[in-house]
Amino acid sequence: MKVRRSGRLVDMTHYLLQHPHKLVPLTFFSERFLSAKSSISEDLTIIKEQFEHQGIGTIVTVPGAAGGVKFISKMGKQEAESVEAELKEMLAVPERILPGGYLYMTDILGNPQYVNQIGRLFASVFSDNAIDVVMTIATKGIPLAYAIATHLNVPVVVVRNDNRVTEGSTVSINYVSGSSKRIRTMTLARRSLSPGTNVLIIDDFMKAGGTINGMINLLDEFQATLAGIGVFVESEGTEERLVEKYISMLKLSHVNEREKQIQIVSGNYMEEKNKFLKT
Amino acid sequence: MKVRRSGRLVDMTHYLLQHPHKLVPLTFFSERFLSAKSSISEDLTIIKEQFEHQGIGTIVTVPGAAGGVKFISKMGKQEAESVEAELKEMLAVPERILPGGYLYMTDILGNPQYVNQIGRLFASVFSDNAIDVVMTIATKGIPLAYAIATHLNVPVVVVRNDNRVTEGSTVSINYVSGSSKRIRTMTLARRSLSPGTNVLIIDDFMKAGGTINGMINLLDEFQATLAGIGVFVESEGTEERLVEKYISMLKLSHVNEREKQIQIVSGNYMEEKNKFLKT
Repeated sequence: MKVRRSGRLVDMTHYLLQHPHKLVPLTFFSERFLSAKSSISEDLTIIKEQFEHQGIGTIVTVPGAAGGVKFISKMGKQEAESVEAELKEMLAVPERILPGGYLYMTDILGNPQYVNQIGRLFASVFSDNAIDVVMTIATKGIPLAYAIATHLNVPVVVVRNDNRVTEGSTVSINYVSGSSKRIRTMTLARRSLSPGTNVLIIDDFMKAGGTINGMINLLDEFQATLAGIGVFVESEGTEERLVEKYISMLKLSHVNEREKQIQIVSGNYMEEKNKFLKT
Repeated sequence: MKVRRSGRLVDMTHYLLQHPHKLVPLTFFSERFLSAKSSISEDLTIIKEQFEHQGIGTIVTVPGAAGGVKFISKMGKQEAESVEAELKEMLAVPERILPGGYLYMTDILGNPQYVNQIGRLFASVFSDNAIDVVMTIATKGIPLAYAIATHLNVPVVVVRNDNRVTEGSTVSINYVSGSSKRIRTMTLARRSLSPGTNVLIIDDFMKAGGTINGMINLLDEFQATLAGIGVFVESEGTEERLVEKYISMLKLSHVNEREKQIQIVSGNYMEEKNKFLKT
């Protein structure tokens, strides 16, 4: 059955949103709707314009016989700043201070709407990196890792601090948890990563960076490649940072447990502001 | 700036997909696009028709001054069956058998596309239940819980088997892990659940049901209400089931570790087939 433009726009919008970073040949849509490729091209122009105008993302055209279109999930600069401001305000509440300089963030990371916004923000920042897999460590980083992976359309692997039977054979390494200086173990199922895989490491919180440094060492064990590091909140004021290059959304710049004071500032993600849409 | 129908259809489709189960007043859209409510109504009719035709969901109209429209994320019956068939085939591979009658599912649950499909399937099944929160237990259930919660537009709370500092004050209970008959502890942050909350419990795998039964007992501690139980794969052949009423997508009906045999059949979710779209 032939589908009219209005119907096509609704369905193509849905399809592209569900399949970011996937090359879709124009013939896929023209066969789906029994419409000429020229009509499909016009539809895509309308969708691209609207996506860029509303800060949803962009549509890239790959020319040639093996070509097609690719939806890249992006956020507008203004929206990124307003999401940042909202989260900053929510986090800068003295009641959130936990023993050891940690922050209570469970409610925010438990809300799929916030998690999805943070995910879109990081997916914008890393939209040009070649990424095959998102890696995180259980438990808190998992929702963020999936949100980012959804917008980059790649799988997630979860490193664990225990060694549960359901994982099959595993690779374990010891690492020094930077803040507590304790030696801990992290484990990843052997079938999780192939050699040469480009891995984006994601975590919710970083103090000295011992955990992320451990994940980088784990990549070596699998002969995988580091493609980027993203953390939701980094904590300032740790003597030495074990990790060099990373993108953070927020920075916990001052915590005084005794006087119940807390200060949250911007992370360094806006150094990548050309990765965001200009809306 | 006034937006034309084609632009409105793209943006409204995106907006509704991002805000399932949320009542949106027509004035929201008419102000957003500087368009008459009658035009917005026509747009919504086109979107609803297309959503139902393509098995994306439905749009419910709530009449009256405090009314509006609500997008309910649903799956078509045919798509549900084809997703089920695909997962069945992927899982019924002898190499997936792990010691203790478990199944290696990490690759499937690590793929956001599959996780999202399973999420939409369960969101359809539970679309009419009053649900305030989705609860799961770390680690494997987390991606599924978020996928379902995203489509139901509610937060997630994660029960843990350890007691990490970043959670603040917690409530713990002991439970008997049904299959291993061991006594374990599960913990939930005190600020996670308010009394009277309607909770949907989600897990990736259920043998005797000891873990889910533990979560039900934990709900009592918080004076919360059980609103439903969903498991991705249940394992048959356990002597006694500790949990009575639940929805499963797949059933592991036969595992022979020695002879490397495995059989996966349908779970009971199709008993709720009226919850799916007829496409």
